[in-house]
Amino acid sequence: MNKRIVNFQDWLKSKDIPFGFITSSDNVFYLSGFRSNPHERLLALGIFPDAEPFLVCPLMEKEDAKNSGWNFEIIGYTDIENPWDMIRKAVEKRNVEVTAMAVEKEHMNVERYEQTQALFSRPQLISAEGCLRELRMVKDESELALIREAARLADFAVETGVNEIAEGKTELDVLAAIEFELKKAGINEMAFSTMVLTGANGASPHGTPGKTKIQKGDLVLFDLGVVYQGYCSDITRTVAFGDLTEKQIEIYETVRKAELAAVEACRPGVTCAELDLTARNIIRDLGYGDYFPHRLGHGLGISVHEYPSLTETNDLVLKPGMVFTIEPGIYVPGVAGVRIEDDILVTENGFEVLTSFPKSLQYIK
Amino acid sequence: MNKRIVNFQDWLKSKDIPFGFITSSDNVFYLSGFRSNPHERLLALGIFPDAEPFLVCPLMEKEDAKNSGWNFEIIGYTDIENPWDMIRKAVEKRNVEVTAMAVEKEHMNVERYEQTQALFSRPQLISAEGCLRELRMVKDESELALIREAARLADFAVETGVNEIAEGKTELDVLAAIEFELKKAGINEMAFSTMVLTGANGASPHGTPGKTKIQKGDLVLFDLGVVYQGYCSDITRTVAFGDLTEKQIEIYETVRKAELAAVEACRPGVTCAELDLTARNIIRDLGYGDYFPHRLGHGLGISVHEYPSLTETNDLVLKPGMVFTIEPGIYVPGVAGVRIEDDILVTENGFEVLTSFPKSLQYIK
Repeated sequence: MNKRIVNFQDWLKSKDIPFGFITSSDNVFYLSGFRSNPHERLLALGIFPDAEPFLVCPLMEKEDAKNSGWNFEIIGYTDIENPWDMIRKAVEKRNVEVTAMAVEKEHMNVERYEQTQALFSRPQLISAEGCLRELRMVKDESELALIREAARLADFAVETGVNEIAEGKTELDVLAAIEFELKKAGINEMAFSTMVLTGANGASPHGTPGKTKIQKGDLVLFDLGVVYQGYCSDITRTVAFGDLTEKQIEIYETVRKAELAAVEACRPGVTCAELDLTARNIIRDLGYGDYFPHRLGHGLGISVHEYPSLTETNDLVLKPGMVFTIEPGIYVPGVAGVRIEDDILVTENGFEVLTSFPKSLQYIK
Repeated sequence: MNKRIVNFQDWLKSKDIPFGFITSSDNVFYLSGFRSNPHERLLALGIFPDAEPFLVCPLMEKEDAKNSGWNFEIIGYTDIENPWDMIRKAVEKRNVEVTAMAVEKEHMNVERYEQTQALFSRPQLISAEGCLRELRMVKDESELALIREAARLADFAVETGVNEIAEGKTELDVLAAIEFELKKAGINEMAFSTMVLTGANGASPHGTPGKTKIQKGDLVLFDLGVVYQGYCSDITRTVAFGDLTEKQIEIYETVRKAELAAVEACRPGVTCAELDLTARNIIRDLGYGDYFPHRLGHGLGISVHEYPSLTETNDLVLKPGMVFTIEPGIYVPGVAGVRIEDDILVTENGFEVLTSFPKSLQYIK
């Protein structure tokens, strides 16, 4: 049995829950090694404190599931079969009485909820999310290898984008070049919708790239990440096209100072709140507190947003193996939008920065 | 009040449901005109048989919502506010007693289900999906204009891909060129993950593009669609690189014959099953029935898969204004994978084919 499933079984035992039923692609991948996006079809993992687990997937994916290393029962169903009956039989076969079920309450929909309620005489539902977030928060070596490669490819993507900046090019032109080169390098899945923002768009923390042309005197913000074998990276860099105003430079240097300080503060024992406040206080002290409207960062792994969440109120203590972003930003409408974001691994004694594109202000001529 | 909301209100009245609570991005967009992907945050539309509707969205999207034309109440919430309390107040203000609620059971998660149960003293939940699928199935002129443009861009994308085919290029190389040119044309959102498949990959109905090189004698299958102002297209074409075997040509011509016959059969009054069987029987009669493992097609609009579903058992009768794909395919492992797919609009007297890339077998030299 793999270690991850044993950990989840231990949690089920500790809570006296006879059946865990996991249906999100990300958690199924984490626990089983099988990565699949079944769209509206059912993908699920049944886990018991003691009995053998099972995987449920469309029949046409059964071979893929086996090839991914899943050595236990696989319930494959066709479009005209009812997977729920098959699930009940699999549970009955194991002589398990489902008085309670651990499910992902933020993922399972009401339709499936009603199915499971009918299937097992209305078991109590317990949220499995807390346990799984906890387990996924500390990465093992195999995961770190994939995140490192995803981070390397994110650096490559930013470099490609920076090299593409020129008078008259639009945000979408630059974005097109980035994803073109990534596909040439074998990467066809982004961690989220790539952002290339310039001018006024860059001063919004959630802009959409469009046909805006890059002009001299603009800051150009890149926020992107790739998915490499199921693991995400996430980087932001802001560069100058031509000369900047003193105000723009001041804002850039404030963000950089805050980012560097927060990165340097990373080590086991520090809390998420302390990290957030390390950056936030620098930005506040320099008068830009009102223009930094979001948290410092978020965990990163199979999901591009996972735990820990780096907010000024989160007392969670950092541990070796945690991976997260540090991404302070300042957005002053009409003046400048700057964000700098790295992917950070907490090590035994401190930190490792996984993304490496330069953070000193880059001037593109 | 817009016609779409009035239609939904009429349905609530007919079912005696005092409150509709719609949370999927696609249905919120359909009913309100506001298109947003709030990720894990709550986006919702509250609709009542008689009282004024309200929209719930993150505060930072409130301006966007207004600009999209929503003229009723907007409940904007920050990350530290509880939108559920605000929703209860909005309902109380309207003097509505929520004894039952229409929700999207396939979209609402258990977490939110529990919230709404606690909020309104455990109302009965009724599925809103059937009504909304029915309403969305027949498109109005404004929707058709957008789908036509999305279809035109899909044709452009296939043409770009076909022009890119050359000895030694990989599937991902061709895919990169397609999406590069689309971005240059202002399209940054695909309806689904673009497929460019060749050789053995093309003979799987759900292959993944990779580093396989296109070789002389291969069929190359393109399956892609764009999102244009919120509306999807979906096209498949299969072309020849170099010369084909007689068997490959026979398979291609069988699919083409089936596709053309099904398209020609489209008109008001015909059932989905009749269309499916028009194509399926041709493929069966020519000996390939076992190699056509999926339905004939699916509705198309705000979602890339919506109603109607073109299966051999669906007795739904076609009406003017319906838009769907017709996409028979034959997949013989080791021999050939061919699919041809058009987007079809049912008109008063027949049909209009919205996609126009040639369907006669194209040989790329």
